[in-house]
Amino acid sequence: MFYHVKELQYWAKPERPDPVYAKKLQEILGGQFGEISVAIQYLFQGWNTRGNEKYRDMLMDVGTEELAHIEMLTTMIAHLLEGAPVDQQEQAAQDPVLGAILGGMNPQHAIVSGLGAMPVNSVGVPWNGGYTIASGNLLADFRANLNAESQGRLQAVRLYEQTDDRGVKDMLSFLIARDTMHQNQWLAAISELEAQEGVIVPSTFPRELEKREVSHLFINLSRGEESAQGRWASGPSMDGEGEFQYFAEPYPFADAPSLNPAPPYIHDTPPMM
Amino acid sequence: MFYHVKELQYWAKPERPDPVYAKKLQEILGGQFGEISVAIQYLFQGWNTRGNEKYRDMLMDVGTEELAHIEMLTTMIAHLLEGAPVDQQEQAAQDPVLGAILGGMNPQHAIVSGLGAMPVNSVGVPWNGGYTIASGNLLADFRANLNAESQGRLQAVRLYEQTDDRGVKDMLSFLIARDTMHQNQWLAAISELEAQEGVIVPSTFPRELEKREVSHLFINLSRGEESAQGRWASGPSMDGEGEFQYFAEPYPFADAPSLNPAPPYIHDTPPMM
Amino acid sequence: MFYHVKELQYWAKPERPDPVYAKKLQEILGGQFGEISVAIQYLFQGWNTRGNEKYRDMLMDVGTEELAHIEMLTTMIAHLLEGAPVDQQEQAAQDPVLGAILGGMNPQHAIVSGLGAMPVNSVGVPWNGGYTIASGNLLADFRANLNAESQGRLQAVRLYEQTDDRGVKDMLSFLIARDTMHQNQWLAAISELEAQEGVIVPSTFPRELEKREVSHLFINLSRGEESAQGRWASGPSMDGEGEFQYFAEPYPFADAPSLNPAPPYIHDTPPMM
Amino acid sequence: MFYHVKELQYWAKPERPDPVYAKKLQEILGGQFGEISVAIQYLFQGWNTRGNEKYRDMLMDVGTEELAHIEMLTTMIAHLLEGAPVDQQEQAAQDPVLGAILGGMNPQHAIVSGLGAMPVNSVGVPWNGGYTIASGNLLADFRANLNAESQGRLQAVRLYEQTDDRGVKDMLSFLIARDTMHQNQWLAAISELEAQEGVIVPSTFPRELEKREVSHLFINLSRGEESAQGRWASGPSMDGEGEFQYFAEPYPFADAPSLNPAPPYIHDTPPMM
Amino acid sequence: MFYHVKELQYWAKPERPDPVYAKKLQEILGGQFGEISVAIQYLFQGWNTRGNEKYRDMLMDVGTEELAHIEMLTTMIAHLLEGAPVDQQEQAAQDPVLGAILGGMNPQHAIVSGLGAMPVNSVGVPWNGGYTIASGNLLADFRANLNAESQGRLQAVRLYEQTDDRGVKDMLSFLIARDTMHQNQWLAAISELEAQEGVIVPSTFPRELEKREVSHLFINLSRGEESAQGRWASGPSMDGEGEFQYFAEPYPFADAPSLNPAPPYIHDTPPMM
Amino acid sequence: MFYHVKELQYWAKPERPDPVYAKKLQEILGGQFGEISVAIQYLFQGWNTRGNEKYRDMLMDVGTEELAHIEMLTTMIAHLLEGAPVDQQEQAAQDPVLGAILGGMNPQHAIVSGLGAMPVNSVGVPWNGGYTIASGNLLADFRANLNAESQGRLQAVRLYEQTDDRGVKDMLSFLIARDTMHQNQWLAAISELEAQEGVIVPSTFPRELEKREVSHLFINLSRGEESAQGRWASGPSMDGEGEFQYFAEPYPFADAPSLNPAPPYIHDTPPMM
Repeated sequence: MFYHVKELQYWAKPERPDPVYAKKLQEILGGQFGEISVAIQYLFQGWNTRGNEKYRDMLMDVGTEELAHIEMLTTMIAHLLEGAPVDQQEQAAQDPVLGAILGGMNPQHAIVSGLGAMPVNSVGVPWNGGYTIASGNLLADFRANLNAESQGRLQAVRLYEQTDDRGVKDMLSFLIARDTMHQNQWLAAISELEAQEGVIVPSTFPRELEKREVSHLFINLSRGEESAQGRWASGPSMDGEGEFQYFAEPYPFADAPSLNPAPPYIHDTPPMM
Repeated sequence: MFYHVKELQYWAKPERPDPVYAKKLQEILGGQFGEISVAIQYLFQGWNTRGNEKYRDMLMDVGTEELAHIEMLTTMIAHLLEGAPVDQQEQAAQDPVLGAILGGMNPQHAIVSGLGAMPVNSVGVPWNGGYTIASGNLLADFRANLNAESQGRLQAVRLYEQTDDRGVKDMLSFLIARDTMHQNQWLAAISELEAQEGVIVPSTFPRELEKREVSHLFINLSRGEESAQGRWASGPSMDGEGEFQYFAEPYPFADAPSLNPAPPYIHDTPPMM
Repeated sequence: MFYHVKELQYWAKPERPDPVYAKKLQEILGGQFGEISVAIQYLFQGWNTRGNEKYRDMLMDVGTEELAHIEMLTTMIAHLLEGAPVDQQEQAAQDPVLGAILGGMNPQHAIVSGLGAMPVNSVGVPWNGGYTIASGNLLADFRANLNAESQGRLQAVRLYEQTDDRGVKDMLSFLIARDTMHQNQWLAAISELEAQEGVIVPSTFPRELEKREVSHLFINLSRGEESAQGRWASGPSMDGEGEFQYFAEPYPFADAPSLNPAPPYIHDTPPMM
Repeated sequence: MFYHVKELQYWAKPERPDPVYAKKLQEILGGQFGEISVAIQYLFQGWNTRGNEKYRDMLMDVGTEELAHIEMLTTMIAHLLEGAPVDQQEQAAQDPVLGAILGGMNPQHAIVSGLGAMPVNSVGVPWNGGYTIASGNLLADFRANLNAESQGRLQAVRLYEQTDDRGVKDMLSFLIARDTMHQNQWLAAISELEAQEGVIVPSTFPRELEKREVSHLFINLSRGEESAQGRWASGPSMDGEGEFQYFAEPYPFADAPSLNPAPPYIHDTPPMM
Repeated sequence: MFYHVKELQYWAKPERPDPVYAKKLQEILGGQFGEISVAIQYLFQGWNTRGNEKYRDMLMDVGTEELAHIEMLTTMIAHLLEGAPVDQQEQAAQDPVLGAILGGMNPQHAIVSGLGAMPVNSVGVPWNGGYTIASGNLLADFRANLNAESQGRLQAVRLYEQTDDRGVKDMLSFLIARDTMHQNQWLAAISELEAQEGVIVPSTFPRELEKREVSHLFINLSRGEESAQGRWASGPSMDGEGEFQYFAEPYPFADAPSLNPAPPYIHDTPPMM
Repeated sequence: MFYHVKELQYWAKPERPDPVYAKKLQEILGGQFGEISVAIQYLFQGWNTRGNEKYRDMLMDVGTEELAHIEMLTTMIAHLLEGAPVDQQEQAAQDPVLGAILGGMNPQHAIVSGLGAMPVNSVGVPWNGGYTIASGNLLADFRANLNAESQGRLQAVRLYEQTDDRGVKDMLSFLIARDTMHQNQWLAAISELEAQEGVIVPSTFPRELEKREVSHLFINLSRGEESAQGRWASGPSMDGEGEFQYFAEPYPFADAPSLNPAPPYIHDTPPMM
């Protein structure tokens, strides 16, 4: 169960309205790696954790924090939209700066949400539950989380470069720092789990059931051998189970496929003569 | 540019038709972590790589291999659908085993694709470009790739447990082994990049611009302190820049927000008395 | 069965082309509360009505009218796109007013639809059957309809504020008036149904089967008690079945959950030591 | 900012696993009117409220409660999935009851989420931000909320009818009672707002700017006059601004449209001879 | 503008309820090539036609008929759902035939639509405006329409094979016949347009502006030359502008690409040493 | 199985960066008729072909070529994005030309993909597997392919008109020529199949099972008889099976529908008095 307090976790007031930037900021609210994604993802991972209370508690801690980040961003977007001059069409037709603002903002911010934030990304595509990753396997999922915080910090940093507003930059510097912590955190949790179960997910599938002759084989399917220079092309494999090998001139391991004709009730093309 | 040869990379014939399993197998073809996802993801990462030819070549190698895995799965699904008895409704109304098969298969396999595979997941939701991750930052993206291969191998292993067909199991044992290699590979590539630029993505943003006082702070927002026991709660941080700290009784760093009234042309609720 | 006549239900010619406004107008054609939504929604509600011919007939009347509104908007959008100067790139690179127009219009109007309307919203996201509400319960659905006409009129009014074109304003004044009627109409139909079956949907579920101790309880989960001042916090409940109560310091009614470990064939994280 | 406590708001343990019912229960978690929808909707409405602190506080109270309902349902679904016999394919091929269970469950519960809940509906379609309604106009939005609680209670009641598990029924009886309260609550809030600003949304648009001659006119576009019997067809209108009228044999108010030919750079069909 | 009459264009009563078949029938109502798709597609093509009144009128004729087909299918689905025994869970747990029915039907038909049709396909994915094709170029669009009627008739025929209900078969035989007519119709319209403007769409782009040396060249990119046997590999081209040629051992016409490094404010991976 | 070579099939360097045009070019990469669509479509058609090796081989040839076109477009888009001045906000606020560029580009190109191409269309909506058409019936599918190449060439031609960059125009002139070839090719393949099996898809359904009295009947449902002038309204039908007829004043062939009341466990509106 959750409780809400009205104070924001962190806040800085923007210096001025900026509806075009409000549209961009939607990316880290409702995009693939926005705050809605990580909130839903961590909470579902927590709720689906079976045993391992330490990890469940940690997931609920972080998922709950991400709800506060959603709140900070919706508030910032609503502030940036204040004063969007959407009723000044006549002027805009003459004034190209005003025209560029009105053409560059998300029209739904004026028509649909009444100058409020929306659960959509920076091009207006709605947030989608299909972004969520919660598999029940914690090592797999913590890798998803490390990626999410890496992509999320990268996007926040790029947005930081795209504004001169000191208030916005201040708030982003808080979110960027939290992304730093969360990358640190998932790296720590991953190192704990890898130390215990090894690096290959899932660790519980008997390795002898996989086709082991290709478990450490790099296959050179794009002509040119620049890829032979990487750590993945030779030397001991990362799972400590073998040696990397480089398959320079790869061939198929099987024949061409052949399907039987469809039965009549499927009404495919009849066989040609 | 690409060339195709008709031979499959690997193949094993299923022992018998199984339209219900064909529906399930769609998950690792057209699901969030199916072969279409990794093919498109690695190819787009390769095409968007700027400099760093070794990584571009490697991405094109692996992306091209995933195209072959799409081909293996479409072929397997088409074989499993052979003999789907969709014209035997009258019998099915009496024979519950037949009824369960017809009720459990994906009806589009009979109505839409004519017993062929489709670019959809195991519940029939179409594959979506929004799954794709290609940011231009290789360390971020290789973490996405490690996650994709972890989720992908986990799903393939779960599917392996859900069939007794030796042909299907044989083909899956090849895909599982390749997922082993690909986890090894992304781990190797990540270790190369982290050795050079450090573990926090992106490495190029000046750390003094972030709000450093919260960069190593774990915030306990779910009541109970089980999460204090993790590696992330104390000791040196993973980025070597500080010490993890545990904020046991967290409070907000800011006040409650307050938005200005909307202008009249937005036609919000007028202020209440 | 339907018949079409070529005359528009209402029409006013726009004074001039305006491709940026054409993009905005797509919201009330193909957005969540656009004319496609209400047409499909009312028609499906009508087709699914069981008994109650008066309501079925009324739904078919209004659904059929909404088809005419789709037609009015597609025609208006096609007119507004006439003269979109998409071949004048060289000039646009110099002329910022032209540049703002070309940057602010929906590029699909030039590339995909050939200056025609599309079944998409103002940011280009396609209309989606998931917007449709048709539950078989008329009181529930008429509330959905009242909302749809409220949101729809609000959006039309906001669009009215965003143009100076007298032709466009004239056509919108017709649609706004019809939304007025349709709000009136759903209010009337709701009052009929509520008079007969009461205000809680569905009325046919025995009230003693619900956990009645929380049926009239307002729970104060956001710190601060401003919400205690509302009609919902004290006095007789709207369904006449009790008194509103205010739960100022709420606590959970249950314990913390605990899930069993997953079985081995699921390959979750093994239990940590 | 939010805090989490581990206790559930309410809880009752299911009597036995039931993976087919787990799939159905996803509807009120991740469907159009599931708990994710109302949580996101109320929170966004709260965050976007400008002035009117009483309503903002109330929205945050209820949105925060819906987060607890998400938690209750994810926990229930995880319990119902315990013991899903997905590794018993060989038996299922013989045992039609087992076959029907395996064919009727959502395969992603076994392959993707590892026996956990997902943010999807009962057919597996992911939750979508496009369901969210938050317009900035409180009367419009409270009508959306009343509809959401009506549809939500209807769905919960239908699900109540589809199980014999006393634990599940007990938990549903709590959610149904809360839906009763929330219908009461939105009715109360609506009556407050309508008393102050009238029943037509938005109230701030000058009525003389709409085409008033059609503001109270019912148009009979489906042959047959059953619809003339309703409250909407005669008598004073609900907004107190006029009399309902019935347009029995409606005609268009305008001529047939005519579009100009597309310019050459659009490459439409050339004019036919 | 449209008028509705209550009579169905054609109708036959199903012999018995069949909720599993109701789910399948959704494909030709709300699937990619269902009646909603063709109705919306033809109407939008008609509304966007500029000049060429004969084609506009014809498109409105056919689009209006497809609305009647939507109505026939929603009615049929509602009939097939009558008597869906969703409250008989206890029996279903014992009776595998009943269990297969309840597991095989679309659960939303019971929970969401109250035994009514929905604008979704046979796996429950909502209809999507992105299916719609209306480009402004009539020859292009009539080819889309010919395909739609081909896929649509194919799906209706496959569904005809999947039922023994004489009422359902009777209604399908009407829809199949109309699809026959519509294939005939689009073939006729295409032949008119091709006779006038040639077979390559668009006909108005000067052919000398395209890279003519590859305009009639078949490129053999899948090893093996079975494709050399087709009409497309030799002989005069269909547009009468040249001779088909077969490029048996194709090579690239260009060099490998090379992108410049990203600027610093993008924060990509720094160049490796 | 596939092999990649690093050379592009064709290439021409753009004269200058143009981030607004990069956004537009996404349409023919990730739109409904972009290169991703045709690549996936032809490959799935090939993989699902049963018998008919000539067509399978041809489909694999063309599908493999489309992969090369994806590569050409991703490379072009990455080049056009080089130098997108997204860090020059302060200047943009003064310089309307710069403002129009920043407002008109896709913000995700700067925030998400780091100046790389994405699998999305020109308004940023992700590519969707639901665009794919692969039915198992080759004549049906080749008609889909002819449409795809017609729409695709039309869009490429429109984009050609929207730029003055000679490099971009050069590359487009190659893609346009290939679309010419592919229209030629599908026309040739269609003529082969139609010669063998006739023009109505599917050819294998006994014509006497359809309601033949409406198989050649044009129904005039939009008032006005312009549509009587077409080839489809009189004369021998295209399938050689009858004569076209024109139904000038059409009436329904059936009565008004009537549904039974829903059972109590569905909780619809109770019958009104």
